[in-house]
Amino acid sequence: MTVDIARGLLAGGSERYEKHLPDLAGVYRDDEAYADAVARDDGEPVYWVESSTPETGRGALTIGLSVLRPGRVGDEFAMTRGHLHAQSEFAELYYGVAGSGVMLLESVEGESRALPIAPGVVVHVPGGWIHRSVNVGDDTLVTLFTYATEAGQDYGIIADAGGMRQLVVADGTDWTTRPNPDHGGYRA
Amino acid sequence: MTVDIARGLLAGGSERYEKHLPDLAGVYRDDEAYADAVARDDGEPVYWVESSTPETGRGALTIGLSVLRPGRVGDEFAMTRGHLHAQSEFAELYYGVAGSGVMLLESVEGESRALPIAPGVVVHVPGGWIHRSVNVGDDTLVTLFTYATEAGQDYGIIADAGGMRQLVVADGTDWTTRPNPDHGGYRA
Repeated sequence: MTVDIARGLLAGGSERYEKHLPDLAGVYRDDEAYADAVARDDGEPVYWVESSTPETGRGALTIGLSVLRPGRVGDEFAMTRGHLHAQSEFAELYYGVAGSGVMLLESVEGESRALPIAPGVVVHVPGGWIHRSVNVGDDTLVTLFTYATEAGQDYGIIADAGGMRQLVVADGTDWTTRPNPDHGGYRA
Repeated sequence: MTVDIARGLLAGGSERYEKHLPDLAGVYRDDEAYADAVARDDGEPVYWVESSTPETGRGALTIGLSVLRPGRVGDEFAMTRGHLHAQSEFAELYYGVAGSGVMLLESVEGESRALPIAPGVVVHVPGGWIHRSVNVGDDTLVTLFTYATEAGQDYGIIADAGGMRQLVVADGTDWTTRPNPDHGGYRA
């Protein structure tokens, strides 16, 4: 398999899913800005994931490419839904291929970390940590990832909590984090 | 952690091992060429691995950088020892960062594959496959890898078999494979 950086494709991968802005209701905190963005939407996907799962069961790895277009909704930068692994003890690797982003990591217990990701940067997502990619740059953010296939994904944990604890927001020409006023804590 | 391509370092990694040419007795088939190479050796490592194992146990990932200097011993290109995972059902990811190489993959049952690896190329090593990196270029081969920490390594399986089934050798200005006359089959 080969990463096609310019087009954001994993040549030789076998699975693809994409998310359009209307799929992301509830992800951004500013409802009015989100409604405006949907009204102005160009219909292109805002992010997509191409991946390959050559084997299943114990020991198998899913390998993929996450591609996130730049943008903002209110003061929040474009982001993926984020997830915890369904078998939460499984770690994940992300490797920056193109663009400028932040990996937002939060433990169920209450810790938060915002790790910059750029070409050449390796991010280790420890077991038990909820994580999402955020594009804080002007270009498409492309990251390579791999995780144990049996780990699975729990996408509901963030929605059920009213979003992640921290938001990644614009701060002049840079980014910062601020607490999410809607966050009600993660279910244990 | 950040990959320093020019220096072949994983900044922020915590473990490192290196191999010098005299450590590789028995790896190359041409004893005379190996003895000559050792006699002319500059004392620098021929390859090294920098890695990080932030967690242990089920679900943990070891992430690292494999750095292999170019060279030849007889007609064989510079290579790593290679290994099977001690828990052989565990897969591994390699991602090409710099240089030009081949990932040589062999199943215990008798299949061989030689997959080119270069910047942007993803190689999936399936569970149950013995694998080694070979540098077929003029520059240092740098690959990022990750595997489940609990997978472990079995380095003995190749030595016990008299080397891998196939050799990666020079063919004019290119590379090819030829059968290893010393290979006696892998133990089941």
